[in-house]
Amino acid sequence: MRPEIDADRLWADIMALAAITDPDQPWTRRSFTPRFREGRAWLAARFIDAGLDVRLDAAGNLSGRRGPAGARTVLIGSHTDTVPGGGRFDGIAGVAAALEVARALAGRPLNHALEVVDYLAEEPSVFGLSCVGSRAMAGKLDDAMLAFTGPDGGTLAQAIRGVGGDPEHIAAARRSDIALALELHIEQGRVLESAGVTLGIVSAIVGIARVEIRFEGAADHAGTTPMDLRRDAMVPAAETIAAVSALAQEYAMAGHGHFVATTGVVEVTPNAANVVPGMVRMIVEVRAETAARIEDFLIRLAALSRDAAARHRVTRPVFRTLSRTDPVACDADLRALLRDAALLRGTSTMDMASGAGHDTAFIAAIAPAAMVFVPSKDGRSHAPEEWSDRADIAAGAEAMLGAILAFDARPIHRK
Amino acid sequence: MRPEIDADRLWADIMALAAITDPDQPWTRRSFTPRFREGRAWLAARFIDAGLDVRLDAAGNLSGRRGPAGARTVLIGSHTDTVPGGGRFDGIAGVAAALEVARALAGRPLNHALEVVDYLAEEPSVFGLSCVGSRAMAGKLDDAMLAFTGPDGGTLAQAIRGVGGDPEHIAAARRSDIALALELHIEQGRVLESAGVTLGIVSAIVGIARVEIRFEGAADHAGTTPMDLRRDAMVPAAETIAAVSALAQEYAMAGHGHFVATTGVVEVTPNAANVVPGMVRMIVEVRAETAARIEDFLIRLAALSRDAAARHRVTRPVFRTLSRTDPVACDADLRALLRDAALLRGTSTMDMASGAGHDTAFIAAIAPAAMVFVPSKDGRSHAPEEWSDRADIAAGAEAMLGAILAFDARPIHRK
Repeated sequence: MRPEIDADRLWADIMALAAITDPDQPWTRRSFTPRFREGRAWLAARFIDAGLDVRLDAAGNLSGRRGPAGARTVLIGSHTDTVPGGGRFDGIAGVAAALEVARALAGRPLNHALEVVDYLAEEPSVFGLSCVGSRAMAGKLDDAMLAFTGPDGGTLAQAIRGVGGDPEHIAAARRSDIALALELHIEQGRVLESAGVTLGIVSAIVGIARVEIRFEGAADHAGTTPMDLRRDAMVPAAETIAAVSALAQEYAMAGHGHFVATTGVVEVTPNAANVVPGMVRMIVEVRAETAARIEDFLIRLAALSRDAAARHRVTRPVFRTLSRTDPVACDADLRALLRDAALLRGTSTMDMASGAGHDTAFIAAIAPAAMVFVPSKDGRSHAPEEWSDRADIAAGAEAMLGAILAFDARPIHRK
Repeated sequence: MRPEIDADRLWADIMALAAITDPDQPWTRRSFTPRFREGRAWLAARFIDAGLDVRLDAAGNLSGRRGPAGARTVLIGSHTDTVPGGGRFDGIAGVAAALEVARALAGRPLNHALEVVDYLAEEPSVFGLSCVGSRAMAGKLDDAMLAFTGPDGGTLAQAIRGVGGDPEHIAAARRSDIALALELHIEQGRVLESAGVTLGIVSAIVGIARVEIRFEGAADHAGTTPMDLRRDAMVPAAETIAAVSALAQEYAMAGHGHFVATTGVVEVTPNAANVVPGMVRMIVEVRAETAARIEDFLIRLAALSRDAAARHRVTRPVFRTLSRTDPVACDADLRALLRDAALLRGTSTMDMASGAGHDTAFIAAIAPAAMVFVPSKDGRSHAPEEWSDRADIAAGAEAMLGAILAFDARPIHRK
């Protein structure tokens, strides 16, 4: 008998887990809180119901597993934590879909171990660090990060211990047994909805660069300072913002994958109607599927912001990289397996990049990994209105199930 | 004997009055404070020394006067109040120069009464209203303004009574006896300094319009929202800011007098690096010598901001005039008298508009009025660094003195 995804059972799990929320601020279940531990207790019970062994690694990742220790492992899952006032699907849909895949495969012999995972603290918790659990699995959660403190002075290490982890032996969380990793996630954008397509097969998870730019002029009297004697910091800032948008559209249309650039932060000093702006600080964020395109854009941004400053007799004393992560490509073989599995079910797919970061970006460093996206209504996410349809999530789980069956059936395992 | 300005005596007065400052925050002597009353007591003593009768009108304007009540009056002066942490010259130089003119004319018969005035509260005091005394002289200080309250709940009317005024009979402050009014003031800009000219003969005091513009888009995820699905409120705002600057330069160079436009306030919501700006609020200020040019600019601003919004799929729900005052022309005859008087002394002059507001803008509604500007070092004003040279201020006083003598000597007084 072909294993089947039960869409209603999957949906009921999502709603049940989402309902474990801070009542005053739905939907909230932040990492390390009592509410978070309550959600995990519920999940551990579901693992047991599904015949999985419950385990918690040194980094606080919660798993439900079948198959012997040391066996090559099919790792599927996402995260159960939320942002404050977030939605019911971000992370949760991926954990529930993985659980449903495991239930569909219950009793069926497999050549691999199967592990459903709830990665710890994918969202930035009070410690300001995202993807804590998946970082640790990839060996990238270092001592400096473990020493990060929250508002009450406690460290991330203490918080990991609080959820049952063993931060003194964090290296034990590192994995080398993963044969493949899959994650279902909501898109958090409008691409699938706009295209009328059910599943996104993620080609890559973008790299992100954030650059701070400051323009400095002179905060002169806006009445008595003629146009030709001004050193208005806002004018080159405005020209740079407009150029960032126009150039990003050019890059996006050039056809080398996802490319976005945003000027999200603009701060004017002194910000008074009758004073020429003396200083403007802004942050430009660039996301792309290849590091080369990010680099190329930043070189052009440096030049055009410098030119804008010079044109308006102001200086640009700061052009500083605040943070930068490299893009991660998803495994082409796994993408093909996901695409084929969806097509066999008559589910429409499209290749797309993930513009947001995910646990899979870290797992991809230690194993072949891929992601499947389901549509987000109106592109909304990290908000109570966040919504994805039951049938779409089930279709995503079916694609994962089909890909796992195809992979597991191969005569020779990949190295 | 030709009456003479004593530059050193004039300078000593400026320094003496400026020295009456809040010691913790030089140079500060805000209206209605004990320090302000101390400054006025010093000034009243100087009036008496100069043989002037001290009077205080219903609006709290302090004068030193010679000549019978009811006589046609030459009114000269400025204000002794300062902004917090202001300079030693703004207002003060004009009062001291007027006092020095009166001293130079002491004992000399005149066909007019002569009155040196310290207009009350030119700077916005704790009541947020500028030019209180000159408004009252022009009959434009209304009951609503008198009811303005300060941080401690007291009204402007009470404060006027506190400095010796009679706010219940504010109409008594209205003047119809002014034959001419002159005011010396520091330029508060860099025009004279840049041109290497000693005196500015003010052609007009600009009108000022302030417009609030809001752009509303959608605060989407900056990673997952492709460029072509964005509704980024910052992009049309940036294009509008750049256009305001470019257009204002065009207007300024067209040769119809002073024209400036400034985007001084820009506020972005939510102002986060990873969120597309959903809303931008900005304030554009326009100043010009004619109301028609302000109107013309605002019409173009309305169109270009609307077009920018449409180009980027955002709305522009707010385009609202926050405040608007009309320009005031200075009297051509008085300007010619000032210019001739300066030229006779070998002092260089240039015609220029005042980009800032002044008491004279109100007085011009009830009498022929003009202003003379002296250079401000580096254009600085409303700051402790504010500076004007002794010789320049004396040259301005000499120009006023010469203009008054020429006017007073005319066989038939102007109506």
